[in-house]
Amino acid sequence: MDAIEVIRAKRDGAELSPEQIDWVIAAYTRGEVAEEQMSALAMAIYLRGMNRAEVSRWTLAMLASGDRLDFSDLDRPTTDKHSTGGVGDKITLPLTPTVAACGAAVPQLSGRGLGHTGGTLDKLESIPGWRAELSPQEMRGVLDTTGGVICAAGPGLAPADRRLYALRDVTGTVESIPLIAASIMSKKLAEGTGSLVLDVKVGSGAFMKDAASARELARTMVDIGNDNGVRTVALLTEMGTPLGRAVGNALEVAEAVEVLSGGGPADVVELTVELAREMLAAAGLTPGENGVKDPAEALRDGSALASWEALVRAQGGDPAAPLPVAAERRVVLAPASGTLTRLDAYQVGLAAWRLGAGRARKEDAVSFGAGVTLHAKPGEGVAAGEPLFTLHADEPERFDRAAQALEGAFDIGADVAFEERPLVIDRVA
Amino acid sequence: MDAIEVIRAKRDGAELSPEQIDWVIAAYTRGEVAEEQMSALAMAIYLRGMNRAEVSRWTLAMLASGDRLDFSDLDRPTTDKHSTGGVGDKITLPLTPTVAACGAAVPQLSGRGLGHTGGTLDKLESIPGWRAELSPQEMRGVLDTTGGVICAAGPGLAPADRRLYALRDVTGTVESIPLIAASIMSKKLAEGTGSLVLDVKVGSGAFMKDAASARELARTMVDIGNDNGVRTVALLTEMGTPLGRAVGNALEVAEAVEVLSGGGPADVVELTVELAREMLAAAGLTPGENGVKDPAEALRDGSALASWEALVRAQGGDPAAPLPVAAERRVVLAPASGTLTRLDAYQVGLAAWRLGAGRARKEDAVSFGAGVTLHAKPGEGVAAGEPLFTLHADEPERFDRAAQALEGAFDIGADVAFEERPLVIDRVA
Repeated sequence: MDAIEVIRAKRDGAELSPEQIDWVIAAYTRGEVAEEQMSALAMAIYLRGMNRAEVSRWTLAMLASGDRLDFSDLDRPTTDKHSTGGVGDKITLPLTPTVAACGAAVPQLSGRGLGHTGGTLDKLESIPGWRAELSPQEMRGVLDTTGGVICAAGPGLAPADRRLYALRDVTGTVESIPLIAASIMSKKLAEGTGSLVLDVKVGSGAFMKDAASARELARTMVDIGNDNGVRTVALLTEMGTPLGRAVGNALEVAEAVEVLSGGGPADVVELTVELAREMLAAAGLTPGENGVKDPAEALRDGSALASWEALVRAQGGDPAAPLPVAAERRVVLAPASGTLTRLDAYQVGLAAWRLGAGRARKEDAVSFGAGVTLHAKPGEGVAAGEPLFTLHADEPERFDRAAQALEGAFDIGADVAFEERPLVIDRVA
Repeated sequence: MDAIEVIRAKRDGAELSPEQIDWVIAAYTRGEVAEEQMSALAMAIYLRGMNRAEVSRWTLAMLASGDRLDFSDLDRPTTDKHSTGGVGDKITLPLTPTVAACGAAVPQLSGRGLGHTGGTLDKLESIPGWRAELSPQEMRGVLDTTGGVICAAGPGLAPADRRLYALRDVTGTVESIPLIAASIMSKKLAEGTGSLVLDVKVGSGAFMKDAASARELARTMVDIGNDNGVRTVALLTEMGTPLGRAVGNALEVAEAVEVLSGGGPADVVELTVELAREMLAAAGLTPGENGVKDPAEALRDGSALASWEALVRAQGGDPAAPLPVAAERRVVLAPASGTLTRLDAYQVGLAAWRLGAGRARKEDAVSFGAGVTLHAKPGEGVAAGEPLFTLHADEPERFDRAAQALEGAFDIGADVAFEERPLVIDRVA
């Protein structure tokens, strides 16, 4: 078999055979298929697509390129959540300890942010002392003692995906649903979870701008999971406006702690509870039976918060330590009075990124204190001259470009009937 | 501008702007666009196509990546021919001296063979002493003294094409009409010819298997030439069966000398004369006027042969020296009597290649004496037990696989009305 034969087959619209897929991923991992050959193949896949059997096999071949963790001997079922990324999406932070408090184990491998959406590891690293890099033994230890763990994927997991993702990033082949689905699912299968809930975001702040593409991505990933023994469901959720009132690393940790303490913004609470219930169901657990707790109850009774504190401490963090605060603040005032009818997720994410909350290149550092506080959410009233946003940054020269990103990011209407969009748009199982 | 933006534009079906094309070719030549980015772009072009303006600009950008020869100060108009490659296609050998003898100058840059079709330089290198590599000054000197020159393109001509061609070869992006057209035409524009005749082959032994694809390639190249000041016409010619009776380097030189001496196979003579007349017309020369000779006359009166001998000598070759002969021969007999109704060009080319006439990789050497002699051409009678092919090779172990390639390569029919296919199928101007 050779690379040109495989490239030509896909280029001409053929279905790749299992043998072709296994060979090309293995040979790429060994360095026998060159980067320029893989990028030509990725473009052919981008334009010709892959069917269900091909995507499933592609995922398994990437999984087989590295190690696979195994938590099947735990005393509790495992479950995990993956979000395709959004603005203000700190859901993993309250969700993981909540589900752990309810009775399932959550072995979560997370990533860092690139571009306008933040990364879970960046947020958690704003907690003094907290460590993202754990050995497989440490990961198992944290999971055993706290019921949850959130850490970085080691280099041994799906190495083919790691190389292919970096290649796609520079060759215009990122936005391919089969390749996105295989990338996400190869890592999630490698992390050894027994069940999985996908949060596929839809809207301006999300990777998928429309519900049809989001539904296709969700369907593809759900099929891959279920075809390969991981019970998988997906929720399509709204990302036209930011989640919660805080966008930025330490700002979002603080908001997550509010939610874990029984308060916090209604949308963050709602999505945490919805996803937690889906995760428990996917893990085969029913609240009220065998000591399994309902997630809303875990948020109310302090057990989710206790689980969070244990989880943070187990990875070296001090849950009581003050969070980093940006050196400078600037307030943006509402230009009119009325109802906030629109607040664009992408533009808010861009502002936070320009303030220093995100990174432009992989090797950049993030500012933990930087970000945007939202003083109003769509549907709420605002008064002219009152604060609409607070911008946080370490360097004041960042404020102007961040404020520019927010121009046109919102609408304020007087006497406008505001129709709230549902947070959960659809469910794919 | 960056590579990802250009790749994405073509990927999404947009027309590339002149600025995008100029930038991407120049940056690729400088090494700032990576091989893996160019291969993704090549695949996007393969699947999305390029329109007339894009292909023309792409060609000019590759031309601008290197030097351009200039023969406009010669005392005679320049003209050249390019063939897309066929089996037994030695036409350049009799054609160049014939056109030179008629009154035009022919500055021809040729290539070596890869795969089942031979290369003009490989054929000429079978002449003892003949040199393909000339400096621009030597090329000019040969052209001045003999009216023709056939040599290898120097590294300074269209270097972007050189790199891109090598990249396409390993990334499944060779068979793209816009990229083929731009590759050929960037080299032909660089060689400085004032007019050009394209011989676009059609059939099993050709790159283009059907007339529609060949016509599209011809149209694309003719437009590029005429759009850029080189008067260009194309003939679509038959390549379902080999040209002439000799396939292999020295065997074809011998046949070319027969044609130049006023004999030789009818199809080789016909195509030489047709193409020579087109070249003279493209150069603005009319036989019978101002001492311009008709090509058929030049073949008859010895002037084409004299021009050939001068041309060979000017590049170090000895036209009187015996040509290399293969060490071993095997005869394949006709299995039946009747009319040879079909003789497949691809299979004969493959047999010659397996005998050592061609190369599998760029760095391989060819055997000058290896090849196939055809004892009958389609339409001619054959008798059972009489020779049909003679195979020539330096190593006898090559015969079996070559003979296998010829199984099923021909049909012999008794009492069959044979309809000869015309050699020139169409003309595109």
